[in-house]
Order: sequence, then C-alpha cells, then structure tokens
Amino acid sequence: MLITVCLSQTRTEPWVEGLRAALPEADVDAWEPGAPQADHAVVWAPPQAFIDEQANLRGLFNIGAGVDALLKLALPPAIRVVRLDDAGMSVQMAEYVCHALIRHFREFDFYEAEAREGRWAFRKPREREDFAVGVMGLGVLGERVARAVAQFEFPVNGWSRSPRAVEGLRCYAGEDEFDAFLSASRVLVNLLPLTESTRGILDRRNLSQLNRGEPGGYLINVARGAHLAEADLIPLLDSGQLAGATLDVFEVEPLPPDHPFWRHPKITVTPHGSARTMREASIAQIAGKIRAMERGEPVAGVVDLLRGY
Amino acid sequence: MLITVCLSQTRTEPWVEGLRAALPEADVDAWEPGAPQADHAVVWAPPQAFIDEQANLRGLFNIGAGVDALLKLALPPAIRVVRLDDAGMSVQMAEYVCHALIRHFREFDFYEAEAREGRWAFRKPREREDFAVGVMGLGVLGERVARAVAQFEFPVNGWSRSPRAVEGLRCYAGEDEFDAFLSASRVLVNLLPLTESTRGILDRRNLSQLNRGEPGGYLINVARGAHLAEADLIPLLDSGQLAGATLDVFEVEPLPPDHPFWRHPKITVTPHGSARTMREASIAQIAGKIRAMERGEPVAGVVDLLRGY
Repeated sequence: MLITVCLSQTRTEPWVEGLRAALPEADVDAWEPGAPQADHAVVWAPPQAFIDEQANLRGLFNIGAGVDALLKLALPPAIRVVRLDDAGMSVQMAEYVCHALIRHFREFDFYEAEAREGRWAFRKPREREDFAVGVMGLGVLGERVARAVAQFEFPVNGWSRSPRAVEGLRCYAGEDEFDAFLSASRVLVNLLPLTESTRGILDRRNLSQLNRGEPGGYLINVARGAHLAEADLIPLLDSGQLAGATLDVFEVEPLPPDHPFWRHPKITVTPHGSARTMREASIAQIAGKIRAMERGEPVAGVVDLLRGY
Repeated sequence: MLITVCLSQTRTEPWVEGLRAALPEADVDAWEPGAPQADHAVVWAPPQAFIDEQANLRGLFNIGAGVDALLKLALPPAIRVVRLDDAGMSVQMAEYVCHALIRHFREFDFYEAEAREGRWAFRKPREREDFAVGVMGLGVLGERVARAVAQFEFPVNGWSRSPRAVEGLRCYAGEDEFDAFLSASRVLVNLLPLTESTRGILDRRNLSQLNRGEPGGYLINVARGAHLAEADLIPLLDSGQLAGATLDVFEVEPLPPDHPFWRHPKITVTPHGSARTMREASIAQIAGKIRAMERGEPVAGVVDLLRGY
C-alpha cells in the first residue's frame, strides 16, 4: 500500500514520519510531480495537478474538518474524500467561542480598558436571557460548541440543513426556519461547512434579522471567510445593528495588512487559529480510517460530494 | 413577623420592596438606629451597632456567599447566620474563571496585541495537559467552576479542608495534601471562604509550589483580597515564577488608584464583579429560607460560626 502526502501551508515531514510510524505496513512518501501512483493520499489544499497525476487514489484524507478547498478541484467520481471527525478540534472551538461570547456578554473589554486607566468601574450586569446564542451548523464541532455554551445557561438555538434534535437546544432546520432562528438569536456563531448554498450567508440581509434591541447582535465566525459578505459587516457595526464581531477566518488569508477589519474597534481578529489540527491525534485517526477502508469497513467522515460536506 | 434590612454599599430600597412582595405575611423595613426589634435581618456588612441593637434576631441572612464581614462582628451565640447558596452566582463564577483561563491558555492577549498592529501572528499551541487547573474550595461555587473547567478537557485538581469526591476531579484535602495539590497544578483558582486559616494563603511560599517550568504558574483569585499576600505577587511575576494573575478582589476595595496591580502587564484587574448577587433570585431564596426557619424546617447554608463558613 502506497500513501502520498501533499500539504500546502503545512510542514509535510512530520506528517510523513508520523504516518510511517502509525502505518508500518504502508509506504509513505511526500508527493512530488511524477511520484508513483498511490492508493491513498493525506492532503491539505492540494493543487489540481496532484489530483490529475494520482489517478489510482481510493481515499483522499483531509487534515482538517472543512473540505471546501478539496471540492474546488475536479475529482474523479469514485474517490472517497474523508474529513477529520474531531481530533482535538471541537474542544478548541468550544474554548474559542465561549471566550468570545463571555468576553462580549460580560463586557470584559470595557473593564480592561477602564483598568488600564486605574478606574474601578461598574456597569449594570446584562441579562443572560437577552443573549440567546444561535449556532449555525450542528455537526461534530457545532454540537460541541452548543453544549459548551448551554453550560453557561445561555439560551441556545441551533440551525442545520436537515432537522436535528440536540438536548438543551432549540433546533431549527432548513431555509424555511432560517429567519425564525435568526430573530430568536442575539449572538450568531457560524460553524457551517462552506458550500455553494452557504457562501455569503452572513450578509446584510441575514445579519439584520438577528434579535433586535440593545446592544445589537454579535457575530462569531469560526468557519470560513467566504461565509461572510465582508463588505456588509462594517456598515452593520457602524449603524449599531451589530454590537461587534469576533472573526477567525477571512476571504483572503493572511488578512491583508491594510484590511479595515484589523483596527475596527468592534471587530476582534484572530489569525485562523480557533481550532488547529492536532497532528498526533489526526495521524492516529487517519491511520485507523485507512486500515478500515482497506478492510472494506465503513469509515466515518466520508464527504457527500454533492452536498459538499 | 418583622424583617429588617441593613445593607452597606448596596441600595436598600429594591431589597425592601422585593422582600415585601415575596413575604406578604411579614413586615419588612429598612433598618435605622432605634428601629423596632426584628425577627430576621437581611444584611450585607452591617455595623456592630446594628447587631447590638437588634437583640431578638433569630436569622441573619447574608446577601452574598462569603460571610467573612459578618464574622468579624460580635454575634449573639444563638443567632443563625445563613448565606446564599448559589442564586445565580455559580454560573457567573464559572464564566469568569473559564474566560480568564482560556484567555491565558490560548494567549488571546498576545493575539489581540498583534492584531492591533495588523499582524497575522502565529504561536505554537500550548498543550492542555501542561495546564492542570487547581481549584481551592469545593463548595457550591468551587464545584461548579471545576466542572466548567473540566468540560474544556483541562486536568482539574480540587482542594478542600475536608475530603471530597467530585467526579472528574483529582481531589486533595487538608494541610497534609496541600503541597501535592499545588505542585500538581499550573493554574490556581481560589474560591475558599475567608477564615483565620485561609487568610494570606496565597503567599510566596505556596504560590512558589505551583507546577514549575514554562510558562510559570497562573493565579485567578475570585474569593477575597485578604487571601493573597499582595506584596508577594509582583516579585513572583517579575521573576517569572508566575506567568500572570487575574484578580477580582483586593485587600482594599476599591483598589486605590496608585496601587501597582492596576498597570502591571501580567495582572488583569476587575472590580469585584466576578459574581454579582442577583437580586430577584436572592430574594426568592431568602424568603423561602425564612419561611422554612419559621416552620422549624432545616435550612441550607447555615454557617458554622467556629469553622467560619
């Protein structure tokens, strides 16, 4: 069995070494043009040339949860695209989202600014019931984030393409229930996969539906930059319809130095680090999936190429 | 039945009105010198004169979780001092502690400072296993905080005066196990009651026991300012033994404008707001306890005056 590794923006060597150790029965090598035909590939945003050359691949294992970069490629129809299930990412997402949510709800930014001036400040505490959190996307990551938020006793709404029932969440599904979901939520957390039907879903029209009234809605985007219509955000913040946003992903990454998001007082920018791929856990998971596929067993995380996730 | 209300640093009127509504069978009034003898009192840090004048009190209901201010007074031995059980405070504590913990662990301070300069920065993620969290005090608040932290998959240690078993926590008890608890923890969260045996417990000797090695220990104090030997903290931070501290409580409050904690780069100061008393929930709880006491039923939260909590 031959496994090839093709990772952009990521050091390839530790993955090759880790996979060799985890799959001693396989030959594992870094891909380069003209390399021999492999049975499986471990990839992150590979070029089209890679797909075109590697015509025998049975499994394409993505080292992240989002496969949108893969689905931009022309893929042979029989290939199975497999994403990571969790591999240490969901707890990081839960941390990131809870930190942003609590920071906003409790106004810690305000208190820290006052403290820098040596001021013992006081604000009337906000009511938790006014800060319903809406989680878009109820996959492995979304469900974990929703459960973490619910633990802090915020009302939690969930929205997914097909109907889901998750304990402790008020669940909405499909386009028909999208507006009701938005207007019942003040803080919107995006964990959707990026597909043709979710691209640009965070636009002026939809963000304006968020629970009205003081202090406006709040956006936390931890999925993909292309979910957000970036040009719509600052007008919504400046008009007060949105109180703020915490963004980890952007249309262009790294976010260009002159991008207005960097210094807008109501936007918190982080450099696409809400959930990093944990190499060791991921290698163990991918090795297990490759073995299962070789034995003809079912494998979790196989992507529906039509649906897009 | 006559109930008197004596609150320092707190508006008395809404409490009087709320208690009147919750206990229509009682007469409720704000205390003033020379007021009639009441059966029960609802208090926050009342003066000794109040206790001396009100000789018939059966119950003294504190509108907070910590009763240290009450126990400084000379109290008649038969009086029952009752503290709030939770009344919306534990979820706020969990929020506050998780925010401070995640902010430190994930280095969000660093990322926000980089973002202000328009820099797309990267740091090697820290390992969760290196950030064991030690919770001192396993009462209603401490247990809730420990459970919230455990949800983010940090190793969690708990320390209490008498042995406790809490699922998901490694529990230590008493003086004999204190050093073992400290050296097994990197982040120390203080939720102890303030008593003669816990005053000054966060001193150089004890804080130096925290889990050594990069990046040093971290202190989160949400109990009482007098738990911390304030003069010991800055030398520990400056030597690198501690990486930082988030402090909500201080020896003198408000923290004086010239206090060095305000502007130390490794200290985050908040103005004693980690958990505010929620008036409505507290009034409902106190009303229920007064009724139970009147019926001769057991009441939760009665303070052991010798033990001090």
